Amino acid sequence: MKKQILIVGAGRSSSSMIRYLLQKSNEENIHLTIGDLSIELARQKAMNHPNATPIAFDLFNTDQRIEYVSKADIVISMLPAALHIELAKDCIRLKKHLVTASYISPQMAELNEQAVENNLIFMNEVGLDPGIDHMSAMRIIHEIQNKGGEITSFESYCGGLIAPESDNNLWNYKFTWNPRNVVLAAQGGAAKFLHEGKYKYIPYNQVFRRTEILKVEGYGNFEVYANRDSLKYQNIYNLNNLRTILRGTIRRLGYSKAWSLFVDLGITDDSYTIENSETLTYRDFIDLYLPYHPTDSIETKLKLALNIAPDDQVWLKLMELDLFNDVKQIGLKNATPAQILEKILSDKWTLYPQDKDMIVMYHRIGYKIGNQDKQIDSTMVCIGEDQTYTAMAKTVGLPVAITTLKILNGTITSPGVQLPIKQEIYTPILEELEKNGITFTEQEITI
Amino acid sequence: MKKQILIVGAGRSSSSMIRYLLQKSNEENIHLTIGDLSIELARQKAMNHPNATPIAFDLFNTDQRIEYVSKADIVISMLPAALHIELAKDCIRLKKHLVTASYISPQMAELNEQAVENNLIFMNEVGLDPGIDHMSAMRIIHEIQNKGGEITSFESYCGGLIAPESDNNLWNYKFTWNPRNVVLAAQGGAAKFLHEGKYKYIPYNQVFRRTEILKVEGYGNFEVYANRDSLKYQNIYNLNNLRTILRGTIRRLGYSKAWSLFVDLGITDDSYTIENSETLTYRDFIDLYLPYHPTDSIETKLKLALNIAPDDQVWLKLMELDLFNDVKQIGLKNATPAQILEKILSDKWTLYPQDKDMIVMYHRIGYKIGNQDKQIDSTMVCIGEDQTYTAMAKTVGLPVAITTLKILNGTITSPGVQLPIKQEIYTPILEELEKNGITFTEQEITI
Repeated sequence: MKKQILIVGAGRSSSSMIRYLLQKSNEENIHLTIGDLSIELARQKAMNHPNATPIAFDLFNTDQRIEYVSKADIVISMLPAALHIELAKDCIRLKKHLVTASYISPQMAELNEQAVENNLIFMNEVGLDPGIDHMSAMRIIHEIQNKGGEITSFESYCGGLIAPESDNNLWNYKFTWNPRNVVLAAQGGAAKFLHEGKYKYIPYNQVFRRTEILKVEGYGNFEVYANRDSLKYQNIYNLNNLRTILRGTIRRLGYSKAWSLFVDLGITDDSYTIENSETLTYRDFIDLYLPYHPTDSIETKLKLALNIAPDDQVWLKLMELDLFNDVKQIGLKNATPAQILEKILSDKWTLYPQDKDMIVMYHRIGYKIGNQDKQIDSTMVCIGEDQTYTAMAKTVGLPVAITTLKILNGTITSPGVQLPIKQEIYTPILEELEKNGITFTEQEITI
Repeated sequence: MKKQILIVGAGRSSSSMIRYLLQKSNEENIHLTIGDLSIELARQKAMNHPNATPIAFDLFNTDQRIEYVSKADIVISMLPAALHIELAKDCIRLKKHLVTASYISPQMAELNEQAVENNLIFMNEVGLDPGIDHMSAMRIIHEIQNKGGEITSFESYCGGLIAPESDNNLWNYKFTWNPRNVVLAAQGGAAKFLHEGKYKYIPYNQVFRRTEILKVEGYGNFEVYANRDSLKYQNIYNLNNLRTILRGTIRRLGYSKAWSLFVDLGITDDSYTIENSETLTYRDFIDLYLPYHPTDSIETKLKLALNIAPDDQVWLKLMELDLFNDVKQIGLKNATPAQILEKILSDKWTLYPQDKDMIVMYHRIGYKIGNQDKQIDSTMVCIGEDQTYTAMAKTVGLPVAITTLKILNGTITSPGVQLPIKQEIYTPILEELEKNGITFTEQEITI
């Protein structure tokens, strides 16, 4: 009998995951049922493989959900994070394992007791970020602790970027994943972290100004800005004596300074709609946020309002986006500023068919051993194959696929709602990721 | 038979209103029932006057509410805006008039039909702002329209400030009303207005930087920042061909530039709490928002982060607040940044017993008549008597009291949920306000 895997969600981030599982399907004796609201998407991902059955799957059709979960041995949910919970409850009821790449929600956490009672593994946060970040960091942390070291600082950064060979704009950025999330990045609360023993808070309006430079051997200079709440990782990673803990997002050098101009201007706001947005030109849109002046041009007003020096390179970045075009219309009804900005950026930041994306992950972990202060820098760079098998799809999907097989073949056994921070879990997954080209380069220095 | 007035809420803003009604009580043949959760507050305001009965009044005690509303001819609600609605529904049921100084909520607006059917007057927005602003503006607007002019621009500004004789700090500001509202001012959405035919939006992080200077004859220089949504007043005032409409808040010159540093720093945020806030010193609190540096002082880091020149006067404003004190503790558990900032400001901005407050209101109305462009500037300044009969209490409370009497004696007659924008309503109220020292000075110029 083949082991049955039910995959729910056959969007972009499922491509590498499904391809990997199909490649392993004979060897591992598995069969995939690939469900998506769009049967077309499911068919594409199934690639006419004999070990895959594409189906039209409606999450809100309870009968169908129960029918297919019943037939499965394990369920992979690639749905948006908010939609896992109904499937998760079915998995409890029908006694199936579950794998997701999303953060554990409070609702998901509540299922832990029932999962343990039924000996079910509900593995979450096993994609890229969260996922590979946890696993690769915990491997270093445990290695240091096992040789008697004490972790004193933990920094971890990740970014979804454009590969150097496809990097041809002044922002060194393109939309390699959900553009809406890029426009809304860092909104909704101050960033919180710990730096040299001091709590630090950065409000949204400053977060793109307080960047730090990050050099990655062979790939040049990047920068990082702080993510929302880094503090909670002290508990998750069980690190109690940290002087510094900071998680952040990686961009190419100069991106954030330019982006902060959009924040200053107010055009990343998604909380209200603009009057007559459809027929406004890009130029009209920008002028909404600048003071009235009888004679000054919009360019002049913008430079004055945002304090941009005439020779500041940031100006070229703004020009490149065609922000001051007085012909191009927005063409979106009742749009928020954030939606309009996304539209404007999409003109320039959409991937060309031949473009490749790039994932960069970076950990910097400080520790004390004996009298010595040491630091490990660990870097992972992954370049996409094409626009289907992107670096994002690969780094999100492969750990999900690998975890699923390790659960089915009994390598991963401890039950409960969990994330991959235990050694017996991350070790086999990281080893298999390495075989598939997702590798970290470590460097250790004594300070 | 005396006319019965039920007053609900005997807080600070009721003092002048109740005193005025008691002074008129024999002449107008009225009796006041003054209700407040605190019987003490009600007693203070009743001043042992034979025409007043203080009672302990609980809005959430339905029986008591119905008992007292039944006995009244008219109800004055001085409760916070969100709490009027139950009383208003009682007034419909028991057929009583209602007066409030609050904006008409959607729920209140829904009662209009029933109020009209029962010939009840529900007069709202009849305090200072909203209230005197509507009435004094509409008087000018109607005068211009009656002589054939067309309104082309409307600007209206108001501020609750400290009187010149009590103005002795570098911010030229003290807390003369709810401090929390001062700290949270302008939050929760971009300011929207129309300027010379162009829609303009100002995000929160810029609103205190985009001020305009306002000179008031005899009182020196002020500044104004834009209020939330000025656009809706086009409909309320029925002004359809405006090129400019802007409402704003008045502060003394220099206040907003300094306040914007708090916005930049992120310490006006009320959406999250600070770790260990109780034992932090003022200095620790500020350092939460500044980057770590091994040797630079907090003062140096702040100047650098917020781009403050060494000779900028704004620095003296910050020093005056004792922001860098490393001994004074915040003393508030689980406090938000906004609550902590309010605490710090309260040390310096609390009124002394002898301090007086000041209200400034300013309208600038442009119009076209024949071939001429003209402009009327209209100013009202009101200084408080003391800390009980403040300018705020007087300008909020007198129009409420006057309106109540004008309804009882049949001067104001048209029923429905409304605000005071009709001539037959604002004329008698403004006339009586003038007799009580609340007067506007007008100046007309041809442009």
